[in-house]
Amino acid sequence: MNYDQIFDSAIDRLHEEGRYRVFIDIMRNKGAYPNARCFHGHNGPKPITVWCSNDYLCMGQHDKVIGAMEAALHDVGAGSGGTRNIGGNTHLHVELERELADLHGKDTALLFTSGYVSNDATLSTLAKLLPGCVIFSDELNHASMIAGIRNSGCEKKVFRHNDVAHLEELLASVNIDTPKLIAFESVYSMDGDVAPIHAICDLAEKYNALTYIDEVHAVGMYGARGGGISERDNAAHRIDIIEGTLGKAFGVMGGYIAASTKVVDCIRSYAPGFIFTTSLSPVLVAGVLASVRHLKESAVERNAQQRAAAMLKLKFAENGLPVMDSVTHIVPLMVGDPVRAKKISDILLAEYGVYVQPINFPTVPRGTERLRFTPGPHHTEAMMDELTAALVEIWDRLDLGLAEAA
Amino acid sequence: MNYDQIFDSAIDRLHEEGRYRVFIDIMRNKGAYPNARCFHGHNGPKPITVWCSNDYLCMGQHDKVIGAMEAALHDVGAGSGGTRNIGGNTHLHVELERELADLHGKDTALLFTSGYVSNDATLSTLAKLLPGCVIFSDELNHASMIAGIRNSGCEKKVFRHNDVAHLEELLASVNIDTPKLIAFESVYSMDGDVAPIHAICDLAEKYNALTYIDEVHAVGMYGARGGGISERDNAAHRIDIIEGTLGKAFGVMGGYIAASTKVVDCIRSYAPGFIFTTSLSPVLVAGVLASVRHLKESAVERNAQQRAAAMLKLKFAENGLPVMDSVTHIVPLMVGDPVRAKKISDILLAEYGVYVQPINFPTVPRGTERLRFTPGPHHTEAMMDELTAALVEIWDRLDLGLAEAA
Repeated sequence: MNYDQIFDSAIDRLHEEGRYRVFIDIMRNKGAYPNARCFHGHNGPKPITVWCSNDYLCMGQHDKVIGAMEAALHDVGAGSGGTRNIGGNTHLHVELERELADLHGKDTALLFTSGYVSNDATLSTLAKLLPGCVIFSDELNHASMIAGIRNSGCEKKVFRHNDVAHLEELLASVNIDTPKLIAFESVYSMDGDVAPIHAICDLAEKYNALTYIDEVHAVGMYGARGGGISERDNAAHRIDIIEGTLGKAFGVMGGYIAASTKVVDCIRSYAPGFIFTTSLSPVLVAGVLASVRHLKESAVERNAQQRAAAMLKLKFAENGLPVMDSVTHIVPLMVGDPVRAKKISDILLAEYGVYVQPINFPTVPRGTERLRFTPGPHHTEAMMDELTAALVEIWDRLDLGLAEAA
Repeated sequence: MNYDQIFDSAIDRLHEEGRYRVFIDIMRNKGAYPNARCFHGHNGPKPITVWCSNDYLCMGQHDKVIGAMEAALHDVGAGSGGTRNIGGNTHLHVELERELADLHGKDTALLFTSGYVSNDATLSTLAKLLPGCVIFSDELNHASMIAGIRNSGCEKKVFRHNDVAHLEELLASVNIDTPKLIAFESVYSMDGDVAPIHAICDLAEKYNALTYIDEVHAVGMYGARGGGISERDNAAHRIDIIEGTLGKAFGVMGGYIAASTKVVDCIRSYAPGFIFTTSLSPVLVAGVLASVRHLKESAVERNAQQRAAAMLKLKFAENGLPVMDSVTHIVPLMVGDPVRAKKISDILLAEYGVYVQPINFPTVPRGTERLRFTPGPHHTEAMMDELTAALVEIWDRLDLGLAEAA
């Protein structure tokens, strides 16, 4: 048994497929985002523009958020010092859960250390509590949902992406008395498409299934108060469990679910991934509280982001770049090959000071490798023009072929 | 199928067993810890003394930590904005991983959002990469290790707590060419005992097994530079993977592993729980960097904590309280019943302003419910005398029986 050899060959496989990941070493410049500094492969930091952040609305730089975090840092200190049950339940946690419950019109909410953990802990625990539960899962669900479903040990039926007819076929194949859970996302973050929430809820009612929606790429960004696609589509009351993140539009870190008191009480009491972990730092919680409260009142950031995304899509299309069909703020450019995607990203960073990460397997299926741009309220039209010109030059240099201008 | 009924009965079971958990709603007072405010069941906050925090050395209140976090907040902003691979790899993350690798004398380190996730993601991924791997797990391993082992899908053999003879028996029962991993903790946090690291490493060498140690209750607190029990016992070089937390002695939040470049590269590249999650907030990372650096140089906090723990154990024993055998900083008092443990805790909070959480199943085995005190460098002798007197009064009031003074 030679362990090193096994580890070596696991890494070699990644190099062979051209998908060995190199983390780009950066620091954002607070107050000047999307400008940042890049340390990677340079002598000292070099200025760059970030085009792939999930701090979609720049709330991670917002004065209210920074101010709230600074106040908490001096009032309470750095960490919570314990699990929620043992010493780590600060009043800020309690307040934030109330605020998030209100955001989604649910009884209550529960914080986790990340969106990943929210999905993994909730799905695995929920399904275990329901004897013989069958989980119906969209084929493009996020890795954290897949982990939670697998860790539940339940039977899983995968329906074709956003395909309600296929979902119904699968639901109908299971005994009506069997507990069922339909798990899906609202915004699919690598393609930018949106789930047919009402149609899925219709089926859930017809077949008596619970519904679980992942809104991590939508909370803060859609709906009049930032309650996500389920708020925008007036469907939140039809969903049993809404899951969200505090690390994207809200700009900080952490995750949560909002649901009925019963469901939350069960997850709180039975999920090892919730029980046995130090709670979110009160500094983070204070920042999120400020962020959620601000985005409930203000649509300025949401609107500016939507305008930026629409403008960038248009510029890409006008210049014949292979922008993918997206009905949301996500702007993906199809490349279709991991080596080429990395090459484009490397040139952008080295020659143009533009940072956009290539997205490869397992984040997207093999053969659909892409660049994924996330323009935000502070990406200017001039930045977009520079980016588009750079991409056109690189597409040309690498002989990738531009389409006729749309 | 009545879902509510199932959820109700899951909660009823907890009430019946007396282990339904009520989170005590507090706020620590930075600069005055262990003093805090309690919001729970009172009209407005009431002052309390916290006796059950895992911010063992009060680093969560340390000026260097607070200062570093404040600086990062203003330099970089609130969150990282992405996964480590996509936009969320700040220079602070890179620096902290170097610092932690150095702390344990390993090639490199890898940050996770929590100690729970470190264990779950690393153990499940590592074991999956090793074909047919058998995992040997101490029976008192933490829930997060158990989750990782279960999620790996590997065969698991549980050895009796700290029982090297039993471990050898199990190791010998498996083919020498089968990949093997021994997973254990250094300090077991609910009992306060310590693993025989060298003896376990002897067996690992003899049977060609990898070793994985969880040092979450030891990093920062043992060893000349805070490298944990493996540093204190000069055994770090014999361990393949050392796992630690940033949320206890280091006072902030997060987790990590330190290991060879090969192992870390594999986990970094293959673990969904690492890949698909927003990285630690740079504000937290900056705080931890300051904390780790300080505790590498300063033994003041470690020594003061050890003195406080020894003094409290002595006071408990002198007063006939059932303090459990502990060779570490953990001071557990055996109660043996969940209802009684909660009762004592409730009286302490309501009448004495003392906050110590009852520890019940599943954190400890049924029938061994206890109170677990974690005296730190800022718990004074006067606080200990008050606490001891309160406990003696309650023990007497509830007729629990005090031993002869030790």
